[in-house]
Amino acid sequence: VCAAPVTTDPRDALSLQEREGWLRAALELRDVCRDVVRGVMAAGFEVDAKSDASLVTTADIEAERAFRLQVDERHPETGVLGEEFGPARPDADLVWVIDPIDGTAEFANHIPLWGTIIGLWLRGQPLVGIIDHPALGTCLHAAHGLGAWRDGERVTLADLESAAPATLRRLGAPSRFAFVKFSDESDVYGALTRTHPNCRTFHTCYAHTCAASGGLDASVEWNVPLWDIGATRVCIEEAGGRFEQVREVERSGIGALHSVVFGRPRMVEEVAATLRGALYPGA
Amino acid sequence: VCAAPVTTDPRDALSLQEREGWLRAALELRDVCRDVVRGVMAAGFEVDAKSDASLVTTADIEAERAFRLQVDERHPETGVLGEEFGPARPDADLVWVIDPIDGTAEFANHIPLWGTIIGLWLRGQPLVGIIDHPALGTCLHAAHGLGAWRDGERVTLADLESAAPATLRRLGAPSRFAFVKFSDESDVYGALTRTHPNCRTFHTCYAHTCAASGGLDASVEWNVPLWDIGATRVCIEEAGGRFEQVREVERSGIGALHSVVFGRPRMVEEVAATLRGALYPGA
Repeated sequence: VCAAPVTTDPRDALSLQEREGWLRAALELRDVCRDVVRGVMAAGFEVDAKSDASLVTTADIEAERAFRLQVDERHPETGVLGEEFGPARPDADLVWVIDPIDGTAEFANHIPLWGTIIGLWLRGQPLVGIIDHPALGTCLHAAHGLGAWRDGERVTLADLESAAPATLRRLGAPSRFAFVKFSDESDVYGALTRTHPNCRTFHTCYAHTCAASGGLDASVEWNVPLWDIGATRVCIEEAGGRFEQVREVERSGIGALHSVVFGRPRMVEEVAATLRGALYPGA
Repeated sequence: VCAAPVTTDPRDALSLQEREGWLRAALELRDVCRDVVRGVMAAGFEVDAKSDASLVTTADIEAERAFRLQVDERHPETGVLGEEFGPARPDADLVWVIDPIDGTAEFANHIPLWGTIIGLWLRGQPLVGIIDHPALGTCLHAAHGLGAWRDGERVTLADLESAAPATLRRLGAPSRFAFVKFSDESDVYGALTRTHPNCRTFHTCYAHTCAASGGLDASVEWNVPLWDIGATRVCIEEAGGRFEQVREVERSGIGALHSVVFGRPRMVEEVAATLRGALYPGA
């Protein structure tokens, strides 16, 4: 009665060479976005208010357009989900997830913590992830089984030392706005900041880069679309960290919204317990 | 019955040339700190826990030591107040205020938002202020009557447009930790994040640089020593913004702790009203 191990992860069916190929392809697409965004920065740009009162600049639009053009040309069998345009071939085995400028308000206000997020997903599993920060000159990337890397150096996350005082633990947290934008979940924000008062709020994926490379012990995102976390899980897991989804809800007209925590394993456990305790106080 | 205008500001008694001289002197001292800190960064550094559980590195100590040596040599008539050593000639007319690395935890964790703060005060009034961010490659400076400048460009703050929705206003806020460190003032934190949910928490003087140059509409510091805000008031006021002290308390063994808000005038008024309303609910 000895069963062979069951492989359910479709990523393991790809050879290391194939995965390296997709990582290279993703890095080339990153360079396409970088060139567009840097060109817009050098030329100056317009800021308009979108209907949801967030900001969008010509850099967002132009970078995602260039990204999609290159995907169509180089990888026509793959799909694309992105912030600025509708889904293209979303049922393909391989689907790119792109947020050309995560943190448009920071970009527009010349605060360099914004980033370009590129993910490649294979049937629901994250194969490649890139978080690029052109204004900071730093880039994080990872691919399944190939490790996480930041600027040419391998990234590995040590677990939280259990002796560390709670006030020294460094959490990346959304602002209160994320907890009241769709419905009043300010109790959850209250619980999070009470148990982890030593938090940073960058409002961009720079918090993900920090959580994957140890600058923050963990980080939380609340009610965000897939493209905001399209590169995060594979980067965190390849660094030896833990990525946990606390909740996923469907919102009509918007789609799936994810609430997640990621970083050093013990810290992620603690924070996830706090969030679940506040969400489901009876459970 | 026509009285001559009474000048009570001792800074106006200095000629523009004298003020320019002190600004140049301050920028030279900034370069001294920069060289030390960059040297430590290149060589690697130790991180120790201080008694108050904040972090201190050799870079803090060495930069402040070098700063004081240069002050003693070049400007022996001036005093120095700093984070790492005791006061020197604190009753001098001109007193330097130095925080060699504001944001030591960020520095130690390779998050580039830390800064070197240098202020020069003339009998209680801020004459010169510098906030330098070597890891970001940006520097803010100002001197009384000479304007505020960032990287060679004059900085001027437009007031908040009154039509701007509250959720778009960008506030720099301390983390909850600052409101519970000495006594439980979490009600104040709650009020601040309720009225201004769209906040950033950088935990360093980078929020001051952003508030003085328009990247944030205003920023708050809560219960901080003088050297954390030693350069801020003159930078904000020279940019056309408003700097308001909401409270000053003496804490035995620590000294004066300041709670302040600064940035675009209308935003500062709003935030100060929120903070005072939470502090003195009966008033």
